[in-house]
Amino acid sequence: MAFRSGRHSLQIPGPTNLPDRVLRAMDQPLIDHRGPEFPAVTKAVVAGLKRAFKCSGPVAIYPSSGTGAWEAAILNTLSPGDKVLAFETGQFSTLWTKLAQRHGIEVDLIPGDWRHPADPAQCEAKLVADKGHAIKAVLVLQSETSTGVASDIAGIRRALDRARHPALLLVDTISSLAIQDFRHDEWGVDVTVGGSQKGLMLPPGLGFNAISKKALAAGKTAKLPRAYFDWQPMIDANDSGYYPYTPATLMFFGLKESLAMLDEEGLDNVFARHDRLAEATRRAVRAWGLEIQCADPKAYTPSLTAVRVPDGFDADEVRKTILDRFDIALGAGLGKVLGKVFRIGHLAYINETLLLGTLAGVELGLAAAGVPVKRGGVDAAMDYLGGNTPAAAAPAVAAARR
Amino acid sequence: MAFRSGRHSLQIPGPTNLPDRVLRAMDQPLIDHRGPEFPAVTKAVVAGLKRAFKCSGPVAIYPSSGTGAWEAAILNTLSPGDKVLAFETGQFSTLWTKLAQRHGIEVDLIPGDWRHPADPAQCEAKLVADKGHAIKAVLVLQSETSTGVASDIAGIRRALDRARHPALLLVDTISSLAIQDFRHDEWGVDVTVGGSQKGLMLPPGLGFNAISKKALAAGKTAKLPRAYFDWQPMIDANDSGYYPYTPATLMFFGLKESLAMLDEEGLDNVFARHDRLAEATRRAVRAWGLEIQCADPKAYTPSLTAVRVPDGFDADEVRKTILDRFDIALGAGLGKVLGKVFRIGHLAYINETLLLGTLAGVELGLAAAGVPVKRGGVDAAMDYLGGNTPAAAAPAVAAARR
Amino acid sequence: MAFRSGRHSLQIPGPTNLPDRVLRAMDQPLIDHRGPEFPAVTKAVVAGLKRAFKCSGPVAIYPSSGTGAWEAAILNTLSPGDKVLAFETGQFSTLWTKLAQRHGIEVDLIPGDWRHPADPAQCEAKLVADKGHAIKAVLVLQSETSTGVASDIAGIRRALDRARHPALLLVDTISSLAIQDFRHDEWGVDVTVGGSQKGLMLPPGLGFNAISKKALAAGKTAKLPRAYFDWQPMIDANDSGYYPYTPATLMFFGLKESLAMLDEEGLDNVFARHDRLAEATRRAVRAWGLEIQCADPKAYTPSLTAVRVPDGFDADEVRKTILDRFDIALGAGLGKVLGKVFRIGHLAYINETLLLGTLAGVELGLAAAGVPVKRGGVDAAMDYLGGNTPAAAAPAVAAARR
Amino acid sequence: MAFRSGRHSLQIPGPTNLPDRVLRAMDQPLIDHRGPEFPAVTKAVVAGLKRAFKCSGPVAIYPSSGTGAWEAAILNTLSPGDKVLAFETGQFSTLWTKLAQRHGIEVDLIPGDWRHPADPAQCEAKLVADKGHAIKAVLVLQSETSTGVASDIAGIRRALDRARHPALLLVDTISSLAIQDFRHDEWGVDVTVGGSQKGLMLPPGLGFNAISKKALAAGKTAKLPRAYFDWQPMIDANDSGYYPYTPATLMFFGLKESLAMLDEEGLDNVFARHDRLAEATRRAVRAWGLEIQCADPKAYTPSLTAVRVPDGFDADEVRKTILDRFDIALGAGLGKVLGKVFRIGHLAYINETLLLGTLAGVELGLAAAGVPVKRGGVDAAMDYLGGNTPAAAAPAVAAARR
Repeated sequence: MAFRSGRHSLQIPGPTNLPDRVLRAMDQPLIDHRGPEFPAVTKAVVAGLKRAFKCSGPVAIYPSSGTGAWEAAILNTLSPGDKVLAFETGQFSTLWTKLAQRHGIEVDLIPGDWRHPADPAQCEAKLVADKGHAIKAVLVLQSETSTGVASDIAGIRRALDRARHPALLLVDTISSLAIQDFRHDEWGVDVTVGGSQKGLMLPPGLGFNAISKKALAAGKTAKLPRAYFDWQPMIDANDSGYYPYTPATLMFFGLKESLAMLDEEGLDNVFARHDRLAEATRRAVRAWGLEIQCADPKAYTPSLTAVRVPDGFDADEVRKTILDRFDIALGAGLGKVLGKVFRIGHLAYINETLLLGTLAGVELGLAAAGVPVKRGGVDAAMDYLGGNTPAAAAPAVAAARR
Repeated sequence: MAFRSGRHSLQIPGPTNLPDRVLRAMDQPLIDHRGPEFPAVTKAVVAGLKRAFKCSGPVAIYPSSGTGAWEAAILNTLSPGDKVLAFETGQFSTLWTKLAQRHGIEVDLIPGDWRHPADPAQCEAKLVADKGHAIKAVLVLQSETSTGVASDIAGIRRALDRARHPALLLVDTISSLAIQDFRHDEWGVDVTVGGSQKGLMLPPGLGFNAISKKALAAGKTAKLPRAYFDWQPMIDANDSGYYPYTPATLMFFGLKESLAMLDEEGLDNVFARHDRLAEATRRAVRAWGLEIQCADPKAYTPSLTAVRVPDGFDADEVRKTILDRFDIALGAGLGKVLGKVFRIGHLAYINETLLLGTLAGVELGLAAAGVPVKRGGVDAAMDYLGGNTPAAAAPAVAAARR
Repeated sequence: MAFRSGRHSLQIPGPTNLPDRVLRAMDQPLIDHRGPEFPAVTKAVVAGLKRAFKCSGPVAIYPSSGTGAWEAAILNTLSPGDKVLAFETGQFSTLWTKLAQRHGIEVDLIPGDWRHPADPAQCEAKLVADKGHAIKAVLVLQSETSTGVASDIAGIRRALDRARHPALLLVDTISSLAIQDFRHDEWGVDVTVGGSQKGLMLPPGLGFNAISKKALAAGKTAKLPRAYFDWQPMIDANDSGYYPYTPATLMFFGLKESLAMLDEEGLDNVFARHDRLAEATRRAVRAWGLEIQCADPKAYTPSLTAVRVPDGFDADEVRKTILDRFDIALGAGLGKVLGKVFRIGHLAYINETLLLGTLAGVELGLAAAGVPVKRGGVDAAMDYLGGNTPAAAAPAVAAARR
Repeated sequence: MAFRSGRHSLQIPGPTNLPDRVLRAMDQPLIDHRGPEFPAVTKAVVAGLKRAFKCSGPVAIYPSSGTGAWEAAILNTLSPGDKVLAFETGQFSTLWTKLAQRHGIEVDLIPGDWRHPADPAQCEAKLVADKGHAIKAVLVLQSETSTGVASDIAGIRRALDRARHPALLLVDTISSLAIQDFRHDEWGVDVTVGGSQKGLMLPPGLGFNAISKKALAAGKTAKLPRAYFDWQPMIDANDSGYYPYTPATLMFFGLKESLAMLDEEGLDNVFARHDRLAEATRRAVRAWGLEIQCADPKAYTPSLTAVRVPDGFDADEVRKTILDRFDIALGAGLGKVLGKVFRIGHLAYINETLLLGTLAGVELGLAAAGVPVKRGGVDAAMDYLGGNTPAAAAPAVAAARR
């Protein structure tokens, strides 16, 4: 690998650029995870996660990837042969249901074109039709990372309520937690799945389950075998501060710091920042004359924008050109959109300046790759951001005549 | 927590004091785990782990604790109702079998007094008696971390061979890998379970399975449901360098560095160092007049020494005194030996000077806690180490008369 | 200070954004600066500095700022009452001569408008007129950090040669070393002054003197009192590796790393990168309709661009707006141009993407501050960089039709 | 260099083992030293230094070694030809006076045997004899780092007072600040010289002058030329927070953290800890049958113990053996005691456990080097520390009978 000057731009939709504060918080000697200091760390982390999930019940924290947290949600609530309802919004919705199938769960996957969100009306229809309540859970991703499509979780909840269906609601927030608003309690979510490596500004290595009372009760009779991912000892740790097996100590240190940073910025400001940068990105994409993978403007996820390349072009070649020339890593298209989209991550520890540099590199890289794009994407983003930075609403600080 | 000057002494039997080189290798910006640079990291890590396990087959690397790696070993080789043979050498042998039971595995646990290793003769007898080959696997820990008892894996292998029994041999090396000699291939081990946080000098967060051909074949027909811990995609990653779900990027960076350190020191030197420090520790314990939990001198594990406190004393109070006064964290007694032993870790990134400081603090702390010990433990350790440091064998470097 | 998401953009003309590699190299335990390991560090550092200065003689390394290295150059070559010739190219040329005056040196400062470089013809005329060789040294800055004006050192050398004048040539490369070409030996420079915090990608804290034979000889008879800044023990350290007083250990570690990075990139590539980014910046400035402080296109320094704000505007208010809204720190105008210019640093560890983000923030910030600028600066920079990135010269990597 | 496991023991009398907190505080991106955030850093640092020096006047902070701070003290108070009184307590007292001589200062150096402190009676006699007040300053080191001899600064002050002599009192606290009690104001010290790399737990790179009103007044008429080390702009920085030339940003970050740590521990606790560890070390030395270089028990410095090796042995060979076998770096004998003493540093970020490990390694290393020492040094230190750790005075925490 040839030497490259200047910080690399990691603009995949997670894992993300880590704040120095988080890295330094993790660059620490270990402490005894069964010693007197550890419970305070656990408790700070659990309290902070509850603020992020907007939940009041327990939170299980696993040394795992997000996939592990998916598995935990399934294993702790379902029994072999149970049926779940899910929505094909992209690659990750598909993978979650495949994981469930590996455990003997029957999946009713509502097909989708990977460009639209889960449809509450379809959900309601399916549930209403399920007179015998064979469906034990509804699985939905708030943000489908492979396509940049966000589903309306409150809407899905209302669908369940209207159908008066007792199914559990299991929601993946891996690429939406601490990026867009999420309300575990208020929206009646039963298990919320999260991961460390996106909005929480940490490296990959922790998976989360926020758990409702109803989910806990379901867990008492759920019969899928479980040990590593069993909730109970993880729930006990919420109170004791001690874990059933060795926790990922440094990740806890980092998470404590990143949760503090979210508090300092304020979650609402975090959401507004992501909305702003996402809108700027979409304006750039449109100015280039390219198509956004998400076809429903109400369903854009603020964490990433998946961009379709024109027919005849290979999105991975485009990504390679952008990486080679401008040292910007973008996300690949996955599964059905392999080679057809590239994904710009605009999430976590990022601001206007860094986004505009990324968009400038992408704009130049598209041209270098021979993609017939119009210039002006960066300008469109700048036009939008120039009028929408937070300080813009504040009293004018324009340079006074001297 | 009051301010304490000087570096804390983390002398639990793992996680251990991390080398600065490892911490700095992990204090890095993330890279795209699906980008062009990551496979080289994976390949360096896999190659290094193979040297550590002395194995030639694939190695699965999980974002998990060691418990996850236990579960992976079970899920990928066994089917519901299968029977395994195990040995009660302490708390962790017990926990592994309980985990297996959660998955519907029948466990024949040979009882033990937590002071002796797995007995090859008992193993052989059990296997010989199992005419119908109902036993599908033998589970054994090379080093039982709760008691400091090491079992003879080559001896267990010979017991299987003598019994001409086809059971798989599953071995836990969580607190022995890169500490004492282990030979996956030569000893005919089928699955070796390892973790990042002991001899590999990393934080907790990675679990490993080294896998034999026989284990792979068994996996084809094994029927326990598995997804997160499925071997196949992890084995594929050995070649592609890419993982099925987000790997713990920074842990990979750290592991690459710690494996390089093991190469620099040389595994045989690593083993000799641990033997030397362990023997020094045991001499100190005996000089204090205390009893070592491991009652079989051939079965001492070089990673830790579990020390029994006299009747009437609470080992946890002793540990607390040592922590309060000398800022040394020792391991607690677990399970059946709760309150009866404390454990001195002398593993991973440690040398004579640091061990002697620890022993001095323990010696003073025992006295401060009112335990009726003789002084002279540090002296005994010094006597031994004075004659056995590596340079001692070299040509004399005594100060010449000028 | 309110929380700000995303990495801060430190685009002052030094100190600069530090590479992680340098920070990690400095995040190390100290070693004995009189122990057996330190000389290897010293020698690597001295050898690397000689490659950077393109010098073959000794290099003195001081725990000091660049100002200290200025003082060292004066103290080791001159005597009270000596006369030197200097050029008013900006604030720092003025400060260096004031420092000389504090030591009783008479300064003949050729006045300047802070927009043009040192003039070799004026230099020659002054020297020719100095029949008695009262002028003992000529002081010149290769890059005047306050104005972005670069002087032609080879040209000044030729002026001395043409005048057949024996004066020493003392050159400041604080903001040019490892940014633009510099040739201590070839250009007959007698003392080159450098600092750690610009092109060498280190924190402030080290000052350098590269020393010619002629300067060494002058030093034998120079009578200004000197102790801390005396060359001789520092020169001895070039061979022994040990310093007369405690060296700044961690800075040496960092410097060893940054010099290795310069080797990896290759000095000529480093220079080309700076030229490219500087030209892009100037095109942006012109597109905005603003004036560049340096009025001589042959004298642009590649490390920074000083930009004049229109009459009636306060450059510091503009800088404040840009900092507040876009988290970009720019350099202030100093001395005579206080409030009249702001300075964009584009030096050291930086690439196209980061520069374009900076220019975007500056463009928006100028508008927000009410400065009547045209849009299009970023576009102009992109137009230039799109055709001039290194890979652009390589065989086309355009996305192939599939 | 062969690989060595375990953390290196840097037990020279400074620079010292750095706390992780300090290293992490320095492992940060730079900020604009002329931007809005820097003054808060300066002010925290200046306020903390005033607490450490126990002074109320200004403190100058130089990017320099301690030698630079020596020079600053001389340059800002004296004029060419001025006379100073000094005491030969070891190598560093000699070096400071030589530095003064380089600036044309006449030095009256009271000879010493490098084993005794400055004698207030001799001081008084000299001053009384100096009827014409030719002596402008008295130079004394609170702790002579080369010999481990501490002089009584309050006693020297009283000598000046008794002699009714107007000389300034200049004191070096490089190896005593934040280690033993020092009172700039109360003891009437005029300039206190300090450095970053000992009690302040930082890397080398900063030098300090605490300045009395009398010293400030003297500075107005002092005629030694000064620029880099001129007090005035440094004093101005105490109020403005901005420095005349680029400050060593990262060192300021580290200093802010280490001063916070001193506050957390409490200076009196810091002093008591050093006294305790120093006494333990001396008891070990005596038990070995070796002689302490400091021959006056009232004058032991708590930062280090210089140990004499028996005739016929080379202290540097002994140090080499200890370094090779136990990875402990000790300080060499300097100047007149070259090869005759080695120095054990027991200062800064250290505790009982770490010291005892060091003493154990030294005890074994002495034997390995063939030095005829008695064993029992570590025992003697343990006997002392066992009865004198802080918690020992607290209500008994002895393990209760269960």
